[in-house]
Amino acid sequence: MIDKLRRHVPVLSWGRTYTREAFSNDMIAAVIVTIMLIPQSLAYAMLAGLPPEAGIYASILPIILYAIFGTSRALAVGPVAVVSLLTASAIGQVAEQGTAGYAVAALTLAFLSGAFLLLLGVLRLGFLANFLSHPVIAGFITASGLLIATSQLKHILGVDAHGHTLIEMVGSLIAHLGQVNAITLLIGVAATGFLFWVRKGLKPLLHRLGVPPKLADVATKAGPVAAVLVTTVLVWGLDLNGRGVRIVGAVPQSLPPLTLPSFAPDLLRALIMPAILISIIGFVESVSVAQTLAAKKRQRIDPDQELIGLGAANLGAAFTGGYPVTGGFARSVVNFDAGAETPAAGAYTAVGLAIAALALTPLVYFLPTATLAATIIVAVLSLVDFAILRHTWRYSKSDFVAVSATILLTLGLGVEIGVASGVVISVVLHLYKTSRPHVAEVGLVPGTQHFRNILRHDVQTDPSLVTLRVDESLYFVNARFLEDLVQNRVTEGCEIRHVVLMFSAVNAVDYSALESLEAINRRLGDMGVGLHLSEVKGPVMDRLGTSHLIGHLNGQVFLSQYDAWQALAPSARANPVAAQ
Amino acid sequence: MIDKLRRHVPVLSWGRTYTREAFSNDMIAAVIVTIMLIPQSLAYAMLAGLPPEAGIYASILPIILYAIFGTSRALAVGPVAVVSLLTASAIGQVAEQGTAGYAVAALTLAFLSGAFLLLLGVLRLGFLANFLSHPVIAGFITASGLLIATSQLKHILGVDAHGHTLIEMVGSLIAHLGQVNAITLLIGVAATGFLFWVRKGLKPLLHRLGVPPKLADVATKAGPVAAVLVTTVLVWGLDLNGRGVRIVGAVPQSLPPLTLPSFAPDLLRALIMPAILISIIGFVESVSVAQTLAAKKRQRIDPDQELIGLGAANLGAAFTGGYPVTGGFARSVVNFDAGAETPAAGAYTAVGLAIAALALTPLVYFLPTATLAATIIVAVLSLVDFAILRHTWRYSKSDFVAVSATILLTLGLGVEIGVASGVVISVVLHLYKTSRPHVAEVGLVPGTQHFRNILRHDVQTDPSLVTLRVDESLYFVNARFLEDLVQNRVTEGCEIRHVVLMFSAVNAVDYSALESLEAINRRLGDMGVGLHLSEVKGPVMDRLGTSHLIGHLNGQVFLSQYDAWQALAPSARANPVAAQ
Repeated sequence: MIDKLRRHVPVLSWGRTYTREAFSNDMIAAVIVTIMLIPQSLAYAMLAGLPPEAGIYASILPIILYAIFGTSRALAVGPVAVVSLLTASAIGQVAEQGTAGYAVAALTLAFLSGAFLLLLGVLRLGFLANFLSHPVIAGFITASGLLIATSQLKHILGVDAHGHTLIEMVGSLIAHLGQVNAITLLIGVAATGFLFWVRKGLKPLLHRLGVPPKLADVATKAGPVAAVLVTTVLVWGLDLNGRGVRIVGAVPQSLPPLTLPSFAPDLLRALIMPAILISIIGFVESVSVAQTLAAKKRQRIDPDQELIGLGAANLGAAFTGGYPVTGGFARSVVNFDAGAETPAAGAYTAVGLAIAALALTPLVYFLPTATLAATIIVAVLSLVDFAILRHTWRYSKSDFVAVSATILLTLGLGVEIGVASGVVISVVLHLYKTSRPHVAEVGLVPGTQHFRNILRHDVQTDPSLVTLRVDESLYFVNARFLEDLVQNRVTEGCEIRHVVLMFSAVNAVDYSALESLEAINRRLGDMGVGLHLSEVKGPVMDRLGTSHLIGHLNGQVFLSQYDAWQALAPSARANPVAAQ
Repeated sequence: MIDKLRRHVPVLSWGRTYTREAFSNDMIAAVIVTIMLIPQSLAYAMLAGLPPEAGIYASILPIILYAIFGTSRALAVGPVAVVSLLTASAIGQVAEQGTAGYAVAALTLAFLSGAFLLLLGVLRLGFLANFLSHPVIAGFITASGLLIATSQLKHILGVDAHGHTLIEMVGSLIAHLGQVNAITLLIGVAATGFLFWVRKGLKPLLHRLGVPPKLADVATKAGPVAAVLVTTVLVWGLDLNGRGVRIVGAVPQSLPPLTLPSFAPDLLRALIMPAILISIIGFVESVSVAQTLAAKKRQRIDPDQELIGLGAANLGAAFTGGYPVTGGFARSVVNFDAGAETPAAGAYTAVGLAIAALALTPLVYFLPTATLAATIIVAVLSLVDFAILRHTWRYSKSDFVAVSATILLTLGLGVEIGVASGVVISVVLHLYKTSRPHVAEVGLVPGTQHFRNILRHDVQTDPSLVTLRVDESLYFVNARFLEDLVQNRVTEGCEIRHVVLMFSAVNAVDYSALESLEAINRRLGDMGVGLHLSEVKGPVMDRLGTSHLIGHLNGQVFLSQYDAWQALAPSARANPVAAQ
């Protein structure tokens, strides 16, 4: 009972042995992460089309709930880029940005996501996330990164533009080029350039200057904070917002409010599919980050319990003015590198953010949105990686098809269609590959009891006997292939009296394949040809034994292929020594 | 060139060797089939909601085109029950029954079906039909049979009723019970009873009376013709249509007219999905019938060429006043039993039906629709077979889930949702089964070089070495499962220094699984544990060789598991004799 409770509420395990040293490590990590998270939270809320405070609210209660229910010791939960984009895309279809309905739709989306994740977790259905193959995820992340970066260009240019696909966005940007605000553009380009330089050039420089690597790391991660501070001061000092530079403006000074999602049936219906998509993508992202970090300390992650942790975090977001959240890569790595030892580090981060929400929001009044856009662009462009195209092309053409279709459809038709098509395409390609399994016609290697492919080896055969070795489990997608194959092979040779199917590589036979075997048996019977099976594995034979196939088999089941050869091949009987 | 032409136009092959004997056999078969087809064609047209002549027209040109392009020698193409139901369901959503738009929608549906089948055939994509597993087809046919029988009850009762799901139909029938026409009911019940008796009781009776089996067969199949003749004469003689019995009425006396499908974009868009569904279901039904009959004469069917034959037949239907057609089970068996030798029998049947369309339609003026409904009910109830539930329950629970979901959803939500859900459910269940492959931890059988499951055999192991044998190809659905499994196993034992993955049963490793192996390699590296592979098959090794995995492998690739044991297990090195 206690064990079960501990499994579902991991805090009960690590909380009991919490030491003073772990506390001080967690506190240090929390301070660093809090500082990073403030600009990131504001930026992702902007990306989701929500007011800036939503990003901070979405980082407070969700972090605490994840600390209680999650299993990763370093995962930092909150708004992330891809989920913010998916949120904007989903709720943009049901409400106008900036309205109260839009914020409520965001809460509802977080609620549905949370409920769906919890449901999956309780039913232990985490395996569903496996339907997203690595190439589909990689293609989707790359395309999303491009979409997100493009969507932020309007803030850099200081114009109004919109659109959900790459073409729509670029078209809208071009149409508004006349309205470009030069000062905004200057701030945006400078901030973007600075952040790129921090990412690529600062660390080697600090290294050459003899700064310790750990400190250099922190300095590199603090780039966005520096950009925020400098541009805010500039705008304030030079009164640039009076000259058309858009700023964040007033952000309420308050702890996260208590909010309620909407339960209007129409809204729930419109948001359920996007919520499922967001949940699964968020879960996949979060679990891969958590597993990577856990492995470094030889810890383990329970994916089904992660569903519960993330589900609780999203429900928390829904009731405290947030929007869908998940475990983010960048913030988790910062947390891990900063030395967080337990999920308590997340809780302290939450306290830090709560203080920021209460006290620090006036400081971001003059923060230009172009700076936030620059932090988003630099963050997401690091996700864009077309190398996946080259890697999959070299390794497997069908994976290449899946990844390129996902990229093109995501860019061309939007995130939801893109990722859904990716899943369908990769499933269909996989089924296609198994739909034409490798089947070898085999013969006896002289002087042995081994049977090998007649095309590759010099083997003994008999014109009245055909032996086919099937190198795949038999199920509905390849059942009819086997029917056709046997029928074609048998109609080729009029001397054939026996067909042996060698099942050494068949791990399963489903009901469709059973019916195909029965059809093969019936048809061969109509032709006066015997159907035999050899080397059937134990579990497969157990299952076939419950069917009528074995009873009606127009032939025998042989333990080994060699037994079948000896019993059925006239040449083996006529000249038994030659077959030894 | 000639060979290629012959493959795509099979008539060029069998036409050259057509003998007088084959001609006379084909003629006899054609006469028998023509007589059977007249009531069947009228009945199925009624089921599709079309005027009776559409059923006859749909049997003329399509039969001829299939005779030219199809590969089966006995298949009879024309309207069939399930496709008629699907047609009614599809075009009922875009047009009102009885309007000109309804007939045009039927032509358009046939056109789209034909075009889609041709496209699949030209692209050789016939394998797509394999996505319909046998249990899904069986469940769908059973549920459709029930739906069709229920839909015909209104003709037996003589009331107006409608609906696309079982509940809607039954509800509508109950609501109209007050309008029941007693004479219609009498005719309908009598005809239904008579036809059931013909099917079950006539043959044994004729057998006892000493009638030759072949003649008894024909007499049994002629039951519907007898019912049509008797009830028509009754209605005509007793003027029953004056007393409320609905009759077929005037059918134009004409050869099939030249018609054009509509190319209105809205209509095409609305009908494309139903057309795809009809094509695939029709193709599956047709190919299974054709293969069963071909096997009896050791002939072969080319499924891709069948797509072209059926595609041409449907295009023919679209331009000659018909509606979607396919190879029917009942009529094909009659054709085969009646001794048809070549597709020419189909062409003669077409001539017979053309004569009927020109000359005999006045004879069916007084035919009561209740009789047609009775022929449909008796025909489709023979398709209803709940035994599939029992069989799949006994053989495989996941097949049972697929079949029962298909039956329930088809009855409850309609044919299209039913069959589409069936496909999705069976694919997901299959993927689920392969998502948790059998993985055995193995050890050395003492005194041998064999490695077996440590849970089943008394084997040697070493605490620093874990060997996992994976019994399934690795791909995206089970890639993460393997990651979790390895990580969990390694975090269990602190002494573990080496993990060997034994790949003897792995036939393929896709890109996702490759990335999972790389992740496992990286994580084990972080823990200071080596990752090794053993017994990797040639093609898998070739592919892995193009990736970075082998280069970065935190361990070695061993040809045999025994090599791995000798190299990695300290106990093997310390005491080499014990390991022999």
